[in-house]
Amino acid sequence: MERRDFSNPLPLTGLRVTDNFWKKEMELVRTEVIPYQWEALNDRVPGAAPSFCMRNYKRAAEIQKEKREKGSAYVPQTWPLTTFETLPKEPGRLDGRFYGFLFQDSDFSKWVEAVAYSLSQHPDPELERTADEAIEIVCAAQREDGYLDTYYLINDESAIFTNLRDNHELYCFGHLAEGAAAYYQATGKDGLLKAAERFASYIASQIGPEEGKKRGYPGHEIAEMALMRLYELTGKREYLELASYFVNERGRKPYYFDVERKLVCPPGELRYQYNQAHLPVREQEEAVGHAVRAVYLYSGMADVARATEDESLKRACETLWNNIVRKKLYITGGIGATHEGEAFSFDYDLPNDTAYAETCAAIGLVFFARRMLQLTPKAEYADVMERALYNGVLSGMALDGKSFFYVNPLEVLPEACHKDKRKQHVKPVRQKWFGCACCPPNLARLISSIGSYAYTEKEDTLFLHLYLGGEITAQAGGRQVRAAVYSEMPWNGAVSLECRSDLDEPYTFALRIPGWADGYELDAPEGTKREEKDGYLYLTRAWKKGESVRMNIPMKIRLVCANPLVREDTGKAAVMRGPVVYCMEEADNGKNLHLLEIGADEMHTAAGRDAMGEHFIGITAGGRRRMADGAEEEPLYAEYRAPDYEKAELVYIPYYMWNNRGEGEMQVFTRVYG
Amino acid sequence: MERRDFSNPLPLTGLRVTDNFWKKEMELVRTEVIPYQWEALNDRVPGAAPSFCMRNYKRAAEIQKEKREKGSAYVPQTWPLTTFETLPKEPGRLDGRFYGFLFQDSDFSKWVEAVAYSLSQHPDPELERTADEAIEIVCAAQREDGYLDTYYLINDESAIFTNLRDNHELYCFGHLAEGAAAYYQATGKDGLLKAAERFASYIASQIGPEEGKKRGYPGHEIAEMALMRLYELTGKREYLELASYFVNERGRKPYYFDVERKLVCPPGELRYQYNQAHLPVREQEEAVGHAVRAVYLYSGMADVARATEDESLKRACETLWNNIVRKKLYITGGIGATHEGEAFSFDYDLPNDTAYAETCAAIGLVFFARRMLQLTPKAEYADVMERALYNGVLSGMALDGKSFFYVNPLEVLPEACHKDKRKQHVKPVRQKWFGCACCPPNLARLISSIGSYAYTEKEDTLFLHLYLGGEITAQAGGRQVRAAVYSEMPWNGAVSLECRSDLDEPYTFALRIPGWADGYELDAPEGTKREEKDGYLYLTRAWKKGESVRMNIPMKIRLVCANPLVREDTGKAAVMRGPVVYCMEEADNGKNLHLLEIGADEMHTAAGRDAMGEHFIGITAGGRRRMADGAEEEPLYAEYRAPDYEKAELVYIPYYMWNNRGEGEMQVFTRVYG
Repeated sequence: MERRDFSNPLPLTGLRVTDNFWKKEMELVRTEVIPYQWEALNDRVPGAAPSFCMRNYKRAAEIQKEKREKGSAYVPQTWPLTTFETLPKEPGRLDGRFYGFLFQDSDFSKWVEAVAYSLSQHPDPELERTADEAIEIVCAAQREDGYLDTYYLINDESAIFTNLRDNHELYCFGHLAEGAAAYYQATGKDGLLKAAERFASYIASQIGPEEGKKRGYPGHEIAEMALMRLYELTGKREYLELASYFVNERGRKPYYFDVERKLVCPPGELRYQYNQAHLPVREQEEAVGHAVRAVYLYSGMADVARATEDESLKRACETLWNNIVRKKLYITGGIGATHEGEAFSFDYDLPNDTAYAETCAAIGLVFFARRMLQLTPKAEYADVMERALYNGVLSGMALDGKSFFYVNPLEVLPEACHKDKRKQHVKPVRQKWFGCACCPPNLARLISSIGSYAYTEKEDTLFLHLYLGGEITAQAGGRQVRAAVYSEMPWNGAVSLECRSDLDEPYTFALRIPGWADGYELDAPEGTKREEKDGYLYLTRAWKKGESVRMNIPMKIRLVCANPLVREDTGKAAVMRGPVVYCMEEADNGKNLHLLEIGADEMHTAAGRDAMGEHFIGITAGGRRRMADGAEEEPLYAEYRAPDYEKAELVYIPYYMWNNRGEGEMQVFTRVYG
Repeated sequence: MERRDFSNPLPLTGLRVTDNFWKKEMELVRTEVIPYQWEALNDRVPGAAPSFCMRNYKRAAEIQKEKREKGSAYVPQTWPLTTFETLPKEPGRLDGRFYGFLFQDSDFSKWVEAVAYSLSQHPDPELERTADEAIEIVCAAQREDGYLDTYYLINDESAIFTNLRDNHELYCFGHLAEGAAAYYQATGKDGLLKAAERFASYIASQIGPEEGKKRGYPGHEIAEMALMRLYELTGKREYLELASYFVNERGRKPYYFDVERKLVCPPGELRYQYNQAHLPVREQEEAVGHAVRAVYLYSGMADVARATEDESLKRACETLWNNIVRKKLYITGGIGATHEGEAFSFDYDLPNDTAYAETCAAIGLVFFARRMLQLTPKAEYADVMERALYNGVLSGMALDGKSFFYVNPLEVLPEACHKDKRKQHVKPVRQKWFGCACCPPNLARLISSIGSYAYTEKEDTLFLHLYLGGEITAQAGGRQVRAAVYSEMPWNGAVSLECRSDLDEPYTFALRIPGWADGYELDAPEGTKREEKDGYLYLTRAWKKGESVRMNIPMKIRLVCANPLVREDTGKAAVMRGPVVYCMEEADNGKNLHLLEIGADEMHTAAGRDAMGEHFIGITAGGRRRMADGAEEEPLYAEYRAPDYEKAELVYIPYYMWNNRGEGEMQVFTRVYG
């Protein structure tokens, strides 16, 4: 593994996003999601379950204050730690205990992370002041030794780090560190960063391989990548060491999750699959268990592999990546085929209607993909990242930014969602807010930082993984390189890049050739050195200001089928164009979508369409509808005869736009003929 | 409704079954299931979960004895009634409480019912002595006032009839009455019958519409039809009145199930759908909730409708029947599409791989069908009865009678059963015995009494609903009519009926023309009056001994498809021949059955086959296999192109024979082309 291959995300402060598509999403996050989320954190959303997030921080801060004032005379009250979620017996009448989900602290951290990214694109003194005030409350809740999880600080400090498997302390730390780093990078203010660092140091003092420490690791991963972010920001090796320890200790025997609950004779090998702690990570060959946790872990593994140039860890990442991408990935970029454990199912088991495909899992896959790209610039990683972003991630949010999906199925029959308990995890309409509100704030922080996924840089190269329109300042190796990207993705494959710096030395722009492209045209200044490798077109020259590259990647409508081993999609095909997966909705196609079939050899047309307040490319596909008039009067079983069909024009819209017109059927994979 | 249409099942004592097919099944029950079951009832099966059934009866008998001896000085110990199942803390070390499932008493009742039917076909003094001894124990457990449920007699008599919704007392009574009636009919011994009658009278003294009684009804239905059986056997109207009351009270407001748990302001309307107690039965238009309970209720409703000539109740039965048969029935005769509540799903929701289709539910459907036939002799009822019997009922038992399915899916991928929690109710192989052992003994009692489903009689008519080979004595109206039926069903449609009595007056043999028949040939004595009505061919004459009828119902291989509103079967077809549904197994067709397609216009051949110790008709069907060599190396998604196929001969075996060669894939519905 050559260190010189590694690249890093472009700092968001060196980027001004002008992209039509993503700018709109970022604005939604800025104007809708972030303010709404702040109200939610403060329990001010009428009709929504209270979060108790800021309330818990304030309560923990009171306790710290009392401690400081009373010193050793202070004997805190304790509360039982028995429930995953604590709700007041009477709403509004709270006693001193912690309320809400036990990982509720992380709601603040995700919010402040999204705020940070938003501020770096769109300064907003009022929002920044709100964030500063919130940070003050959070910091006031921190214990003198650095510990900061309000669930334990409020309820029972004696139980700190006694249930790493279930109780999300290290998860809350991870989100805190991510938010703190982002806020520091956006504003230069280090109050929260210092708090996160103190918490990290406290963790390192309690957990680790050394005598007297607990040999634990996170039950819900994220601390690994968060620590790596702290390390990369501060250069302090203790964070790298703790992250490496977490990665390397995981899955060893005796299982720490047994040790902490004093199990002596552990039953079966695989019971910690849910937490990816069933095997040492280098021995894991299949992506298993809770999908979000899995890709968060793999992201941390990739970070550690890069920082430590650990070839075996990198290979483990590649193995797990390949398993996901070749056997466990929905066409939408969704992962986690089963709601049982919100988990990966077995190879090739990708049911459309009972899919889980949690928004957060698709987001986590984007994290993982970007880190694989940093390790090795291969377009296949960016292809998956792009697939998730334009489909299974964005489908999580309504077009107005006001409601959200946790679960992103590929086929929905609303009647089944209402009547069939097997599908009760599938909601036929997006929800305003969830008690366990992981997906909306996760969407907010990803979308507002989209620039750090579109571009990575190393000393002499800027990688364009996604064609995100924007003004860029690359700055690796101390040399500033400015450039502008124009793009109409995902609707049009004509993109251009203009260099806005005069460079004396050769510099490379590495343009991704998407996996969906069937060739491309390129127009680059004469004398530019061109090299194609692993799906990237490397264009090298001593660029002069104003020189530009135009690339045209024709977008055609593609009928896409799944591997024949995917039982659920046998005989079916989906429609794609560029990176966008399409779907049919009842609103356009009537009820009983399962009676429609798409003709492989019929004419399929893409055309601009205005609907649902959006301008997008819609598709009409030649197809047919199986006649079923009066079927309710017909017997349930009858002698087979070739069905009667009528010609039908199938109307497809982008999958991420589904369910913005009320409840109705939806379907991605459709039976195909011809 | 004309009373003279009504018919009654032929008494089993008037029948000697000679049928090749069913005789073999009956022998399995006699030689394998009944003895095994007796060992199980007595906790003598090594490796199987103990039943505690006979142990509980003995324990309750001790208590009764103590009571009698000590009189009012006796203060029984009580035990908490909190669990659905009680297991000893240390196996083998029992204290005085009740053990096992709270409905464990019924295991004895089902066993004694099967024994009774078996004795009527196959006298066996030793078995009869065993049964007599068991009955003695059971009767000794009965309380002086007639109450007889060991769960309450042992644990806490003060709680009797306080939880009709969940605690199965009336269910246990129902099975006791069924077993008792059967044993009396087979042996003439009335000890158990008297016990059941006393229990019935006790129930009537405690539950009913009169002031001071509880206005309750069974949470798990069966008492309705059991009481009707007692009524028809004894002529005592109190049983009819109690059954009618149960049927008529059910679902009225305030809900008794609320009243008994002292709920004042009941939430939502439909929460007692599970128990079919959400609406008065005459207002129920959709079959909902627990499928076994549902068809047991409907059977009782049909019995009451017949005895009371209640037209509105009969209509309710018809409505519910139609809903099942038109919208909720698997092609195998299975019902109950979801394991959630072991229940009916919504209309047309008939998934193949997650099907529940409990063996007992198919058995209950046979009960319901026979009763609908008694009300109105229409072949459509017998068609469904036959469909269930030859397919979804028999599939519940291995060919050697030694292992059983609770769940009868129409498609199985063993890997999914092992790895996918959504399918953990689907077992890839039959189980030896279940803790909750309802299906094996239910199979035993149905199979041993198959004759009472094959034939019903009224004064001047013998109905042949199924062509069960046997020697028959019809005796309605005091006139003995003897006949013999020869049949090779389900493999061959040539059947014959020979009259073995000389009759002075005209008498009618009503021969069913199966719904699957495409015409038939008939050879009857000259001068026989022939009338075809509702799927029965009525043949009337003053039959002379030796006169016979030969009917040939050609059996061809049929490709059968589901109604287009059944989403799961779109584009697919199943293979049937006569009443038998066929399936493909991995053992014959290799892995990945989903890659196989059957050609509608290809040649399909039926031929005698010997395998798995059986002689049966196997089918080979012309089809094709989608090429998928090396698919594991191919990407998960790719541009659609018409698949490559290779010609394939699809090997089908009868569905009920599946899974007698170890674990493997199985599939009933297959994609069809042409």
